[in-house]
Amino acid sequence: MPYFISGVTADHNSLISRKVEEFRSLNGVDVFTRHRVDEVDAVNMRVKVVDLDSGGESWADYTRLLLATGASAVIPPLEGTDLPGVFPLRKLEDSLSIKEFLKSNRPRRAVIVGAGPIGMEMSESFRTVGLEVSVVEMADQVMPYMDGDLAARVQAQIEKEGVNCLLGQRVEAFEAGPDGALGKVITSGGELEADLALLAIGVKPVTDLATAAGVELGVKGAIRVDGHMRTSVPGIYAAGDCATTRNVLTGREAWVPLGSTSRKQGRLVADNMFGGDAEFPGVQGTAVVKAFDLTVGRTGLSGSEAVEAGFEPVEISMEAESLHAYYPGRGVMDLKLVADLPTGRLLGAQVVGEMSSVAEKRLDIFVVAIRAGLTADESQYLDLAYAPPYSTAVDVPVIAANLMVGKIGGKACSCNGEGLER
Amino acid sequence: MPYFISGVTADHNSLISRKVEEFRSLNGVDVFTRHRVDEVDAVNMRVKVVDLDSGGESWADYTRLLLATGASAVIPPLEGTDLPGVFPLRKLEDSLSIKEFLKSNRPRRAVIVGAGPIGMEMSESFRTVGLEVSVVEMADQVMPYMDGDLAARVQAQIEKEGVNCLLGQRVEAFEAGPDGALGKVITSGGELEADLALLAIGVKPVTDLATAAGVELGVKGAIRVDGHMRTSVPGIYAAGDCATTRNVLTGREAWVPLGSTSRKQGRLVADNMFGGDAEFPGVQGTAVVKAFDLTVGRTGLSGSEAVEAGFEPVEISMEAESLHAYYPGRGVMDLKLVADLPTGRLLGAQVVGEMSSVAEKRLDIFVVAIRAGLTADESQYLDLAYAPPYSTAVDVPVIAANLMVGKIGGKACSCNGEGLER
Repeated sequence: MPYFISGVTADHNSLISRKVEEFRSLNGVDVFTRHRVDEVDAVNMRVKVVDLDSGGESWADYTRLLLATGASAVIPPLEGTDLPGVFPLRKLEDSLSIKEFLKSNRPRRAVIVGAGPIGMEMSESFRTVGLEVSVVEMADQVMPYMDGDLAARVQAQIEKEGVNCLLGQRVEAFEAGPDGALGKVITSGGELEADLALLAIGVKPVTDLATAAGVELGVKGAIRVDGHMRTSVPGIYAAGDCATTRNVLTGREAWVPLGSTSRKQGRLVADNMFGGDAEFPGVQGTAVVKAFDLTVGRTGLSGSEAVEAGFEPVEISMEAESLHAYYPGRGVMDLKLVADLPTGRLLGAQVVGEMSSVAEKRLDIFVVAIRAGLTADESQYLDLAYAPPYSTAVDVPVIAANLMVGKIGGKACSCNGEGLER
Repeated sequence: MPYFISGVTADHNSLISRKVEEFRSLNGVDVFTRHRVDEVDAVNMRVKVVDLDSGGESWADYTRLLLATGASAVIPPLEGTDLPGVFPLRKLEDSLSIKEFLKSNRPRRAVIVGAGPIGMEMSESFRTVGLEVSVVEMADQVMPYMDGDLAARVQAQIEKEGVNCLLGQRVEAFEAGPDGALGKVITSGGELEADLALLAIGVKPVTDLATAAGVELGVKGAIRVDGHMRTSVPGIYAAGDCATTRNVLTGREAWVPLGSTSRKQGRLVADNMFGGDAEFPGVQGTAVVKAFDLTVGRTGLSGSEAVEAGFEPVEISMEAESLHAYYPGRGVMDLKLVADLPTGRLLGAQVVGEMSSVAEKRLDIFVVAIRAGLTADESQYLDLAYAPPYSTAVDVPVIAANLMVGKIGGKACSCNGEGLER
């Protein structure tokens, strides 16, 4: 949607993965739009359906029920969030409303509440269409899920692109201007004149139906499911942004609502609801976002998350170039790698790189290495694909593993007196 | 060097990773250029060194000796390979000679002998500088290490770029023209008028010193080393293009001379020669090359190699787009994946994709998955980094794993009657 708002994507219909008609054309699939399920009767295995046009109610039986209710934008409990000019960005309709507002109201100044990935994408989007942009973030850094040093690189870049970053500040109210639409955003640090405000402080799982049906909730209030995507109530499954999952590194229940995960779970739960026995292993907290010309991504655990999960993390940081100097088009990237000292196992990676550095795919190399439990030592010898147009002869992930082995070796040495066995 | 010849790389000095002076500036490192080692006396642990300028000979003692003699271009035993206008492309000097010849002789028609990766790179290079290009290849496809169907895609592309592909033909002689330089290339299929010929039929390990020293050779005549890069003679190591390695999938001795491998081995053998105990695990036959706008790569085993190695391979092929339709700049790639039927373990992958498809990094994802022994089932749930500018919500490797699981499942089903245990 940020790309539709900026005009990179011309037609909002192209954002819809599959149209209703495509589902209806499948054998045995029926789709009811403008119908709402108001109640789940788990004892009699049926749902109460309201036809939103006629108002008529009916009960539909099920043998297996999937709750795929998703997540909704968090609207902060502040005055003025319902003013014209204040928008969340969660549904396709939100982006149409924003686009319409840009056209009809010609706003000049936008305030984005939240400097997470949506805040970054929308900073770029609003700058692209010519708005002045301020981002207000409670944390003292942009991209709160990244380490502070890498986040500082992102901040420097977006400030260079003209984005005003207000960190460590809370939004306290949205005030109307003389025309009755948004005029000011009041923050803990002062006032911002604003014609448009975007609420990008996160999402929450939609669980009303689930709780009413007696389905157990888990971490962050999401619907608790097992690896088969079964809820606590027999016959009821949940998947996607409304459901919990597991962090494969910590083994703990987690809630990481992302489209890439939802798609995988959707495929799996469909199999299981029809007699399959597939198990979703969980996620490792991978995320990537484009912030102007920067790629900002992470996977696995940060150093502090690793400590919290009981590991003994070692970190290395490096700056790398994606190609040898003699070949045109190389990009610079910063990479941070986290491993567990006693075992050498890779735990996490973070990248901030120019688009041309293909940092997100170097991150993906670590996604697989971390998932597979490779150690830093083993990762030194990955037989990655090399030719001058694509990478350096020893590519970034291998260099990072070299550095990590050096650091772990050094640490291990310094601990020898204490009897560390390696 | 192909990029220096085409002008993409302006300065040949930028192709040199480290200059002699850089090595000399290191503490404890001395470098003798224009000196040749003529003999290894393994009993007394010394080498005979000839000063090429003075002609003087001397003996130098060693406690550890590294043979890093590399590989040299294979020059076919045919008439006319020494004619002006006939070149190998192995040493930096070769590229300087070719560049000089282009300038002084203004050739119009080039014949490239061999349609492997160097042949592909040089086809692009010679087309870029305006030559007519014919490629003569003994095999009945270009890129002989790729599967035939994918190679056909490469052939179609290079033919579209004006390269004349002569497959299933042997070069029989190089004939001089009236000026004494190359005039014709005689092949098993006829004659080609040519002002320039490039020999790109491969390399062979340089092992004269090793054999004279009584060092054992291995597969393809390369110097046999163990995982520590030790030869059969105590105190003598070998690494890089002159040495054997192991294929991690088959466990067999292999010789796959590539710069990326040499660099890793160089680092490791230096550690080991100074008391380290690191072991090089081997390679998995990863290779990638740019052929005009196509990325052509492979890792692991092809279907036929897998059969030969005792596996029971299943293959899937797919065409994929690197991004969703709504985001600009996506590229198309063909991907082939090979897995082992009884275990589901991934064995190999091949890609041919437009440069914009970033096929080489999707290949790298499989490099790690294959190295780590992941199954197709496990690879379905890789938590790869997704955002619209980078990939599809379910990225190509995961879709490929989905297809593979479907195919293995189907195969397993069809074998149920025969009692296949899965």
